Amino acid sequence: MRILVLNPNTSAAMTAEIAAAARSVAHADTEIVCTSPYFGAAAIDSSAESYLSAVGVMDVVARLTRAGDFDFDAVVLAGFGEHGRDALAEMLTVPVFDIAECAAHVAHLIGRRFSVITTLARSIPPIEDRLLLAGLNAHCASVRACGLSTADVDADPAGAVQAIVDEAARAVSADGADVICLGCAGMAGVTAAISAKLGVPAVDGVSAAVALAQAVVGLGLSTSKAGVFAPGPDNPRSHWPLSEALGL
Amino acid sequence: MRILVLNPNTSAAMTAEIAAAARSVAHADTEIVCTSPYFGAAAIDSSAESYLSAVGVMDVVARLTRAGDFDFDAVVLAGFGEHGRDALAEMLTVPVFDIAECAAHVAHLIGRRFSVITTLARSIPPIEDRLLLAGLNAHCASVRACGLSTADVDADPAGAVQAIVDEAARAVSADGADVICLGCAGMAGVTAAISAKLGVPAVDGVSAAVALAQAVVGLGLSTSKAGVFAPGPDNPRSHWPLSEALGL
Amino acid sequence: MRILVLNPNTSAAMTAEIAAAARSVAHADTEIVCTSPYFGAAAIDSSAESYLSAVGVMDVVARLTRAGDFDFDAVVLAGFGEHGRDALAEMLTVPVFDIAECAAHVAHLIGRRFSVITTLARSIPPIEDRLLLAGLNAHCASVRACGLSTADVDADPAGAVQAIVDEAARAVSADGADVICLGCAGMAGVTAAISAKLGVPAVDGVSAAVALAQAVVGLGLSTSKAGVFAPGPDNPRSHWPLSEALGL
Amino acid sequence: MRILVLNPNTSAAMTAEIAAAARSVAHADTEIVCTSPYFGAAAIDSSAESYLSAVGVMDVVARLTRAGDFDFDAVVLAGFGEHGRDALAEMLTVPVFDIAECAAHVAHLIGRRFSVITTLARSIPPIEDRLLLAGLNAHCASVRACGLSTADVDADPAGAVQAIVDEAARAVSADGADVICLGCAGMAGVTAAISAKLGVPAVDGVSAAVALAQAVVGLGLSTSKAGVFAPGPDNPRSHWPLSEALGL
Amino acid sequence: MRILVLNPNTSAAMTAEIAAAARSVAHADTEIVCTSPYFGAAAIDSSAESYLSAVGVMDVVARLTRAGDFDFDAVVLAGFGEHGRDALAEMLTVPVFDIAECAAHVAHLIGRRFSVITTLARSIPPIEDRLLLAGLNAHCASVRACGLSTADVDADPAGAVQAIVDEAARAVSADGADVICLGCAGMAGVTAAISAKLGVPAVDGVSAAVALAQAVVGLGLSTSKAGVFAPGPDNPRSHWPLSEALGL
Amino acid sequence: MRILVLNPNTSAAMTAEIAAAARSVAHADTEIVCTSPYFGAAAIDSSAESYLSAVGVMDVVARLTRAGDFDFDAVVLAGFGEHGRDALAEMLTVPVFDIAECAAHVAHLIGRRFSVITTLARSIPPIEDRLLLAGLNAHCASVRACGLSTADVDADPAGAVQAIVDEAARAVSADGADVICLGCAGMAGVTAAISAKLGVPAVDGVSAAVALAQAVVGLGLSTSKAGVFAPGPDNPRSHWPLSEALGL
Repeated sequence: MRILVLNPNTSAAMTAEIAAAARSVAHADTEIVCTSPYFGAAAIDSSAESYLSAVGVMDVVARLTRAGDFDFDAVVLAGFGEHGRDALAEMLTVPVFDIAECAAHVAHLIGRRFSVITTLARSIPPIEDRLLLAGLNAHCASVRACGLSTADVDADPAGAVQAIVDEAARAVSADGADVICLGCAGMAGVTAAISAKLGVPAVDGVSAAVALAQAVVGLGLSTSKAGVFAPGPDNPRSHWPLSEALGL
Repeated sequence: MRILVLNPNTSAAMTAEIAAAARSVAHADTEIVCTSPYFGAAAIDSSAESYLSAVGVMDVVARLTRAGDFDFDAVVLAGFGEHGRDALAEMLTVPVFDIAECAAHVAHLIGRRFSVITTLARSIPPIEDRLLLAGLNAHCASVRACGLSTADVDADPAGAVQAIVDEAARAVSADGADVICLGCAGMAGVTAAISAKLGVPAVDGVSAAVALAQAVVGLGLSTSKAGVFAPGPDNPRSHWPLSEALGL
Repeated sequence: MRILVLNPNTSAAMTAEIAAAARSVAHADTEIVCTSPYFGAAAIDSSAESYLSAVGVMDVVARLTRAGDFDFDAVVLAGFGEHGRDALAEMLTVPVFDIAECAAHVAHLIGRRFSVITTLARSIPPIEDRLLLAGLNAHCASVRACGLSTADVDADPAGAVQAIVDEAARAVSADGADVICLGCAGMAGVTAAISAKLGVPAVDGVSAAVALAQAVVGLGLSTSKAGVFAPGPDNPRSHWPLSEALGL
Repeated sequence: MRILVLNPNTSAAMTAEIAAAARSVAHADTEIVCTSPYFGAAAIDSSAESYLSAVGVMDVVARLTRAGDFDFDAVVLAGFGEHGRDALAEMLTVPVFDIAECAAHVAHLIGRRFSVITTLARSIPPIEDRLLLAGLNAHCASVRACGLSTADVDADPAGAVQAIVDEAARAVSADGADVICLGCAGMAGVTAAISAKLGVPAVDGVSAAVALAQAVVGLGLSTSKAGVFAPGPDNPRSHWPLSEALGL
Repeated sequence: MRILVLNPNTSAAMTAEIAAAARSVAHADTEIVCTSPYFGAAAIDSSAESYLSAVGVMDVVARLTRAGDFDFDAVVLAGFGEHGRDALAEMLTVPVFDIAECAAHVAHLIGRRFSVITTLARSIPPIEDRLLLAGLNAHCASVRACGLSTADVDADPAGAVQAIVDEAARAVSADGADVICLGCAGMAGVTAAISAKLGVPAVDGVSAAVALAQAVVGLGLSTSKAGVFAPGPDNPRSHWPLSEALGL
Repeated sequence: MRILVLNPNTSAAMTAEIAAAARSVAHADTEIVCTSPYFGAAAIDSSAESYLSAVGVMDVVARLTRAGDFDFDAVVLAGFGEHGRDALAEMLTVPVFDIAECAAHVAHLIGRRFSVITTLARSIPPIEDRLLLAGLNAHCASVRACGLSTADVDADPAGAVQAIVDEAARAVSADGADVICLGCAGMAGVTAAISAKLGVPAVDGVSAAVALAQAVVGLGLSTSKAGVFAPGPDNPRSHWPLSEALGL
């Protein structure tokens, strides 16, 4: 099976980390291809960047499809709380897995109340929105932020791990969480640190999404085309795919 | 006061209709400027087109801001159920008014249960999502579709009015709606037809948004910058504004 | 346009303050008439007083209507969390604006999570009830009380402003509010103090209601008479209007 | 034990019917005193009448209390969906039982989904509001109206019974109700007819309230005065009790 | 009237305490019979024990029924948060009263927000689940645990009373509860201590259930057999009643 | 990996069908062991049977554990809407997968609104309860019954498939479902028939649970023992395991 993992930001370092996380749970016969948009933001810490990233991943998929190069069994959208899953589900016949949703699904399967630990406080509302829209918020004890931006995390990975573990500890003691979801992509070692220090399972969204992708593909199922994910009408569109129009 | 009304699709005809609706409720001293993205889709009937339109309006605002030409007291986003309001609220210090939300606010003020009548059935879920996220769904009796695409509406405006009135009649009789919100932008004469034939008030989103924009600006209030609508961190971004990169 | 603003308590001082707040946002061609019931309570700090005030404002409207003196385009009910809006909407063909609901509507338009700061803790439940019934509670971060009764506020206005600002600060820091609604009527200077000290927008209900009344009247819309706000059957009623029966 | 049953309208016939229903479930040592306001409406079919009735029952209680004649162990408020319960709970130290809430409590105890059958469609929203505020709506399958006004019911009791049974049948078949609550007070024979014809239990609110009053008084419990039902501050009030001021 | 009170655990001491609580509110002509399962756990502090207890009380009822000895007007299931009420309602034609639900019903009747104080933190989720399924969670301020197991309570009753009062004090001050429900069965003196020290009413589930049983039986009502509580199909079952198969 | 699949009823035919469904999605290196309780009901169509089945599967696991024969990486509980998952999660350190929850999880991943088609109408409420408690009901369009009992299904499998397809068709057209979950275990060919005739994906709970079990085990995750699924206190228990006491 071949899974396309889409990092919605343009950071090559992040793409590599996400690919590593994805590969860590891929079956022997699963090939992971990880890529990122032709244009957009190097990190996603705002709603504006999130929309830009959604169009960026749509553009990647459109380019692959038009070129006849889309040869995947599933797609993972590796932005935690970012937009775009529904558009990809519309565009593709293979199933699409959002890492925030997948982390929440796995959390439901192994506990009663999960908390999400994200980077900046400003990322809490979009994650709450995504869980609400996905119908996965009833067992969410809290979405908390460790206070570090994506750039801060890059600059001091060890400090970031500590900050996330500390915030996860508050989620466990104050909010009653018994599972922690890591609310950002591509941080090696954090889930292990949380489990070791707090004694609760920690879920990485990218791994969760790849595992669920393999499960759903294994079931022979894919996105329903009988409802909102049917392809839309063919309205005239200019400069599309944007990356092609940009000469990228 | 000056209000920028953003038609999220690229149809000049629709932009003109939206401008007319906006001007119909503008105060004598309110100037309406209505524009549309440099790129995108001629109509928005899918999630993919909705994201593209969000980036399109962000791009317009970015161009105006960078050029020092952003001289407005408020912005109206004239896509019913489309994405983008939160990104514009982040980017701007003046308040931003989404037409779906504004129609719902006005409906709350004049009735107990409102229904939204949109075009295609595939547009129902995004409108439900927008109302849910905005916290405005508790008094929503239903979101219904008349079954015509944007193109159909353009091709046969009179037939479209009839189809919308018929669907509104079902919302009143079957769902108990006492107010109808028109779930698309830029259709002249529909609200009058609904009120005349069904005896219930009908709310046009563009008019509602302009009226509320004038009210909020009159109150001296604007978007709170103390929460999620604070401007994001300055992450590196490529090819932005996209229209500039495209040479438009 | 003429707007009737109804102070539901019998305090002349409060009526004057409410009138001033209402006039501060009235358009040049809007006339504000502010009045209060013929009988009732000098302040409303209980459910019993709230019901009495509802009948008091119904009585005022009945007197005006019977005398042929009801010549207004809209009515504002200036009791924050008090009863009566639905009865007035039934009795009148012009739209009726409740200040708690209107403050919440404006808060939705400019932020993501609002808190209401009221006087005594005992006023919190009725405000929560009003927001719940109005379908405007999903984005309400909290309803908080500064601990001062209406009488305390009158006795020490400066101290009251400080107490409200302090409680608003807790709403921002502990509850994540990015907008504050002032949960009582007729206090000059509080919204300015909140904005100045806390950096968040503050909404005064009376101003919000007058602004929204102007907006809705400007849209040519009024209360739907197709549902629960249709006039009721003409059941025999004794001693009505009560003020007339009382010889007032 | 002595229970004061308050018919909120001024109809003597209705008061007598309510008293009979109350006495039908009173223990041998329970005395039922049933009375109605000094002023108000002969029937309650609107929000305005409901507020008027709330002040009417408050007035009765105030008169009894001031005269030293309040010598009851519990109060039943016999208006289905009417206002006033919270005010009485504030004013009194004995517990207060609302018939709509009590019917719903009993329905919860004997079934999974209950429907309420009321008179006119315009009475549906206030009943929905009461159940929502009381936190008793989750198991409510529907609130339905048989289409007859209070006057119609008086004019043709047998026809009314049939209309209610027919509407209850629809609640059972279409909404899945397994218990019916009778959404009006004082109709003899309806519950028996529903049970006989539909095979589902039917709950009369007045009987339910008297039974629960006896249960709660038997437990030695009464309204908590530690929260919102504490007596309010002693704000100056004019013409109170109104009936006294009216010379009644 | 005869009421069968079922202690779901096998502790004779607990059965005696429950019987005493039940008898304290029984009418003169009400006979209380209190019993416990033939097999199962001496205390119920886990989901596994709860299921075992459900089958245990089903078994008791099956034995009585088969022997022709089931001669009761109502059944009280005296496990706070335990399973089994729905199965008994299915098996019997007389009404069944769960003590957690009944405590919550009474709390609704006398206050606005109730908290439940249970033993161990691990018992909080099942109580929350029971209230959620029963549709009685909207007015639940909190479910809190005093931290003592059933065994701890037995070993030091006075210390347990103090721990429960302390936790109830936190529910009042931190969660705004104005009524306390005692979340375990058979502890004499606790409700009196809570009321005396905290000034809020305290509800004992066993007493509440017996009082409500008397009320519902007095109304001539019983479990609806028109819905989910109809008896199930007669599927072949082995070793049933289990106690008989076990030779007990 | 080894997965223990527990059929909660005692029907050997059903156990075989469940085993076949489980094996159909097992990886090459996954061993499926499917078993059923030592005692209980041959089919589960009531709440009483559901509790009995929960104790039956607990008993199986207790026997295996005590004998040192519990050597599995995951457990699947193959009763759709039955009790017991939480008890098994408490008792075991390996993760436990409920087929109703797993079907719902998969449905979320591939569509927007799912319906469950079960056997008898009396099974609808327990399935609704399970989804509500699991926090998976927001995207559930409906739970519907085809009207056939387990015995009917066994007697006429082809007719049962048709009845289920017909009911699924109603879920799609009337309720807007775009995914169907099969609300019973062990029916070969139904999902294929639904997909073929209705064009919507159909999810079989047993397959879904095995697929998710493989995914979660592959992620190296298991049930959190930091919350409600921690093992309970060691209260004295009689006749346990029941099957051993019964000499089975």
